[in-house]
Amino acid sequence: MKRKQYETAMAPMREQLVAMARWARVTGQRIVVLFEGRDTAGKGGAIRAVSEKLNPRQCHIVALAKPTEAEQTQWYFQRYVQHLPSAGEIVLFDRSWYNRAGVEKVMGYAEDPQVSRFLEQAPQFERMLVDDGILLFKYWLTTDQARQEERLRERLDDPLKRWKLSPVDLAARERYDAYTEAREAMLAATHSDWAPWTLVDFNDQKRGRLTLVRDMLDRLPNTEVPPPQIDFPPLGRQPRAER
Amino acid sequence: MKRKQYETAMAPMREQLVAMARWARVTGQRIVVLFEGRDTAGKGGAIRAVSEKLNPRQCHIVALAKPTEAEQTQWYFQRYVQHLPSAGEIVLFDRSWYNRAGVEKVMGYAEDPQVSRFLEQAPQFERMLVDDGILLFKYWLTTDQARQEERLRERLDDPLKRWKLSPVDLAARERYDAYTEAREAMLAATHSDWAPWTLVDFNDQKRGRLTLVRDMLDRLPNTEVPPPQIDFPPLGRQPRAER
Amino acid sequence: MKRKQYETAMAPMREQLVAMARWARVTGQRIVVLFEGRDTAGKGGAIRAVSEKLNPRQCHIVALAKPTEAEQTQWYFQRYVQHLPSAGEIVLFDRSWYNRAGVEKVMGYAEDPQVSRFLEQAPQFERMLVDDGILLFKYWLTTDQARQEERLRERLDDPLKRWKLSPVDLAARERYDAYTEAREAMLAATHSDWAPWTLVDFNDQKRGRLTLVRDMLDRLPNTEVPPPQIDFPPLGRQPRAER
Amino acid sequence: MKRKQYETAMAPMREQLVAMARWARVTGQRIVVLFEGRDTAGKGGAIRAVSEKLNPRQCHIVALAKPTEAEQTQWYFQRYVQHLPSAGEIVLFDRSWYNRAGVEKVMGYAEDPQVSRFLEQAPQFERMLVDDGILLFKYWLTTDQARQEERLRERLDDPLKRWKLSPVDLAARERYDAYTEAREAMLAATHSDWAPWTLVDFNDQKRGRLTLVRDMLDRLPNTEVPPPQIDFPPLGRQPRAER
Ligand SMILES: Nc1ncnc2c1ncn2[C@@H]1O[C@H](COP(=O)(O)OP(=O)(O)O)[C@@H](O)[C@H]1O
Ligand SMILES: Nc1ncnc2c1ncn2[C@@H]1O[C@H](COP(=O)(O)OP(=O)(O)O)[C@@H](O)[C@H]1O
Ligand SMILES: Nc1ncnc2c1ncn2[C@@H]1O[C@H](COP(=O)(O)OP(=O)(O)O)[C@@H](O)[C@H]1O
Ligand SMILES: Nc1ncnc2c1ncn2[C@@H]1O[C@H](COP(=O)(O)O)[C@@H](O)[C@H]1O
Repeated sequence: MKRKQYETAMAPMREQLVAMARWARVTGQRIVVLFEGRDTAGKGGAIRAVSEKLNPRQCHIVALAKPTEAEQTQWYFQRYVQHLPSAGEIVLFDRSWYNRAGVEKVMGYAEDPQVSRFLEQAPQFERMLVDDGILLFKYWLTTDQARQEERLRERLDDPLKRWKLSPVDLAARERYDAYTEAREAMLAATHSDWAPWTLVDFNDQKRGRLTLVRDMLDRLPNTEVPPPQIDFPPLGRQPRAER
Repeated sequence: MKRKQYETAMAPMREQLVAMARWARVTGQRIVVLFEGRDTAGKGGAIRAVSEKLNPRQCHIVALAKPTEAEQTQWYFQRYVQHLPSAGEIVLFDRSWYNRAGVEKVMGYAEDPQVSRFLEQAPQFERMLVDDGILLFKYWLTTDQARQEERLRERLDDPLKRWKLSPVDLAARERYDAYTEAREAMLAATHSDWAPWTLVDFNDQKRGRLTLVRDMLDRLPNTEVPPPQIDFPPLGRQPRAER
Repeated sequence: MKRKQYETAMAPMREQLVAMARWARVTGQRIVVLFEGRDTAGKGGAIRAVSEKLNPRQCHIVALAKPTEAEQTQWYFQRYVQHLPSAGEIVLFDRSWYNRAGVEKVMGYAEDPQVSRFLEQAPQFERMLVDDGILLFKYWLTTDQARQEERLRERLDDPLKRWKLSPVDLAARERYDAYTEAREAMLAATHSDWAPWTLVDFNDQKRGRLTLVRDMLDRLPNTEVPPPQIDFPPLGRQPRAER
Repeated sequence: MKRKQYETAMAPMREQLVAMARWARVTGQRIVVLFEGRDTAGKGGAIRAVSEKLNPRQCHIVALAKPTEAEQTQWYFQRYVQHLPSAGEIVLFDRSWYNRAGVEKVMGYAEDPQVSRFLEQAPQFERMLVDDGILLFKYWLTTDQARQEERLRERLDDPLKRWKLSPVDLAARERYDAYTEAREAMLAATHSDWAPWTLVDFNDQKRGRLTLVRDMLDRLPNTEVPPPQIDFPPLGRQPRAER
């Protein structure tokens, strides 16, 4: 998709995202969005598309590093729970608790019973959040392997993107089919009425972002809140210069 | 119950509690104990009986103050979750998430739908912890109102105990029957196979403590772990004085 | 400044930022950058310029909301301290502890003795961080009031930017001179050998961003760390499609 | 000292501690007490003597376990700072930041420059807390080695106390003189006007506790706050029994 076309489509949605944030603040709504998908799918870009125009004091991006030793022995959801939103906050998870069913399963960081337990608990856990009134969105960004190969090669060649090529990523490439299998098991177990997955085609990342944001906005209730009246009188004197 | 009789009965259990702690540390077990009950029931004393001889770096007592404004808007369990144990830790909750079904309901700090939701979620939440391998104990300390009256009067008269008489407590006294009703609803909804309540008669607090600790120890699996070999050679020189 | 010119100048610095991040990770360096300045100065854009290509698991943006009631009674630096970096992390503060000498002073959220104490403690506090090995950068973004007026008006007119116009901002406009005075006091008290302020002209935001990033990179020691060797064998089979 | 004599002397101080806590709550004071000393000195008992009659929601005991890997790379004071009190709170540290100058130095967990830096920073850090209005008390509990030997042997023989004999303790015994030297360096560097050390003889632990509590109470300003009027009307009906 061309940048210009993207911009034209994105512009009104940016305003709607801003309206959503105002609505959340004014009405005390709490919003959680999970961004999942294979490496190179475009999670970072999608998160930027959502957060770009929002107040960073309101909209938090949570990208947890691998669990510490102590965290590894805790109830699995514990370290995520402390990032859940208070009234008026929006939290975007760059990868999430679903790591357990994806990278942790495939790379062997978690044992099979831990993975099964996760698949059982995730829907219950999410049920609690949703019943508590949290608006929960779960997006899985899809890409064909051919596109992924291109992007991996791009990362390899581009010094700006090289850091993105972690050893975990290269192993993921080797285990493409294991990941596919893990993903299927994950979708089967955790696609629920109260917290459904939305798969979004990110073979074209711009189109993917538009689709994702559109989908999210459409699922929200009416977010219209009158913008605040702002009284902006003329300055009434010479503006100062700042050294 | 006489102090001496109490001491005789408690002494061997103290050793067993210490053994339990060693076992938890060595095997990485996580133990959570909830202490609930009306004011004056003797939660503090019961917690002391359990924790007294344990390492404070391993055994944590959690007595949360009333939720802050921000906490009040979060998922109800959030502020408790962050105190759940890592491997080897023992956490004793002096009052717990059950506040929602007790003081918060009766005093009107929580609204009815919040209370109902809590009663629905608590067993699910606990199920997750238990399935995750946490050893969860839930004790409700009972006292007759006549005993409670005596103890309240004692608090009133004893400058050491006066602080215990919060306005919440006096209100609780007025609403004794509302508390009873709340307790019944709570037990009915949250007494589960995986996380049963144990009611312990605390009309005699010493006897109550003995019963509680005995019960807890009996529910544990075999906690025998050989104590570490400690090599303690003679000092081999004059001991120093410290100024 | 023209976008194209900006891009040309920014491109090599992006690579250097990525190199800096790799160096920090490999050598365990900790980097803290404070972004301060009047509203509309362009703090958000500057932060984006630095963080854009970095790993969000390594580079954290901290934009704290106003202190809660409990936080207001704590040692002032307490809530900032918990966001300080561990080895390998980069933390960008969108406003920082300097709020006390700026908005809190001018708007009367802090009392005079609190502000004086802050001005005394800030250099000592920073000294400790710097002596501990943290690389600390403090940027103050300047703008003339005429430019600020333009930008405020833009925010007023642009539904995407309206949220940025908080009541605090409008008050700030009224108290422009009080802010100037507060800033002078702040610079005088907290510009130290170990943690100097760098003032950057953000009348042209693009030029400002280039200056800021260039300055920061130039102050770093040699960050060259050989990029990891990445073994990227051909896929050796048909790539899969993902539904 | 005989138990009875101890009780007689302790009784009025218990009331004064309770008064102190009420005063702290009502006036928003923050109190921090550090308990340091060699193993077996009696830190745990002294902490219990202070906290025993206080509200656990107000008076927190902090006994941090050894730092995690991530914590080890942070600014040394960071993990302690998050336990500092909010208005009305009392925090008792069972060992404290002084670990760095004691066990960490002697056992080699910290390197020499880290220890020197600590000795330089500790007084500055404490200065900030004290200037911020925190009431800071630092107690060092002394014991002669002959007493320590007895107590170590007691621990060895008493299954209730065995856990207290960590390998670190046994090493401490071997390095008695190194600890003495470390202590001297520590006192020399960190005994300041604003945060002086008080050494208390704990060869007799009961006497030590009395001395410590007496000293602390005497250093406080007048803590008299009229106790709240409590209205305690007669129950006016048959008390209920609780099953
Ligand atoms: N040993 C581990 N145990 C659990 N999770 C891990 C481990 N190593 C990496 N991860 C997780 O795997 C995910 C993928 O890692 P990586 O590819 O480095 O990050 P990114 O999401 O930025 O591509 C991250 O969420 C990371 O936390
Ligand atoms: N406004 C409130 N909202 C929610 N919980 C509260 C509120 N006020 C008090 N509580 C809780 O009620 C419980 C009883 O309070 P109190 O009688 O003061 O404490 P204690 O358990 O020490 O007797 C505590 O757990 C406290 O956190
Ligand atoms: N009552 C308050 N006490 C202390 N700080 C406050 C208070 N209200 C706002 N602030 C702080 O003032 C700063 C400016 O607020 P605002 O203009 O809303 O944010 P921004 O930095 O996004 O422009 C923020 O850092 C905010 O935390
Ligand atoms: N590896 C370590 N690094 C730093 N501190 C430690 C380490 N091991 C033990 N300690 C501390 O030493 C003190 C005494 O330990 P212990 O006697 O095992 O309770 C405690 O405060 C521990 O936190």
